[in-house]
Amino acid sequence: MLYAEDLREGQEFPFGSYPMVEDEMLAFARQYDPIPIHTDPAAAAASPFGGLIASGLHTMAIYQRLIVEAMWNRVAGIAGRSFQIRLAKPVRPGNKLTGRARITTITHRSERRDAVVIITSNITTEDGETVLAVVLDTLVAARPAPRA
Amino acid sequence: MLYAEDLREGQEFPFGSYPMVEDEMLAFARQYDPIPIHTDPAAAAASPFGGLIASGLHTMAIYQRLIVEAMWNRVAGIAGRSFQIRLAKPVRPGNKLTGRARITTITHRSERRDAVVIITSNITTEDGETVLAVVLDTLVAARPAPRA
Repeated sequence: MLYAEDLREGQEFPFGSYPMVEDEMLAFARQYDPIPIHTDPAAAAASPFGGLIASGLHTMAIYQRLIVEAMWNRVAGIAGRSFQIRLAKPVRPGNKLTGRARITTITHRSERRDAVVIITSNITTEDGETVLAVVLDTLVAARPAPRA
Repeated sequence: MLYAEDLREGQEFPFGSYPMVEDEMLAFARQYDPIPIHTDPAAAAASPFGGLIASGLHTMAIYQRLIVEAMWNRVAGIAGRSFQIRLAKPVRPGNKLTGRARITTITHRSERRDAVVIITSNITTEDGETVLAVVLDTLVAARPAPRA
């Protein structure tokens, strides 16, 4: 497990990949973002987008899956506090999402035994185009003190 | 359908409600945020949170469902551009989420036939406590010109 003292500014965590599959896009959007551009292939085809695009919330959820696998499975995160999210480009069925997280700043708080960590992530398609940019402000635990 | 000209700064859209159910919390988290505090009731009970808490991404997805029903089903949205999101408090099974959206600013762009609309939303529990605050920057279409 990596604690706040084990991280450094500029450190990067490359993401695995996640395929954007139409059935999952439709299921997500029908539950959480039920507007035709995300739920109705025929209506989407007739729209200015020319076809289904993923709910931005779905792409954000996939970002979370990718950063959990790349980072939170081995970093002692406590809780996210805030996100700044930019939807840069539509995501379409068949896109394969990947990307990376980069630690921008680490502010250790010794009295609280944690650190405020700012992490900037880009989610890109298989062509390297950014579809989503995320700045996360989160707390990471300091290494527990050894037992006396 | 409401177009950019039909909106006004200060206008509010009250949300319906959405019950946070443990089975849905677990299913969402196993797919998109697979860490024990969201996926493992026993591990969560032994954690400082004292029990399961919802993935922040899940609460964000529910915000989207509530604002679609309250607003986007009748406002001519084009596309969200960015979000600022603050996770204020954990959401737990049994919470009933509601809230409201408020239009903060509207910047009409006559040459593009749209407006940049900033919308501030709060998601609250049944006790009125804010769990999520969202500032959305989105484009809304101007009313189509009448046919000549």
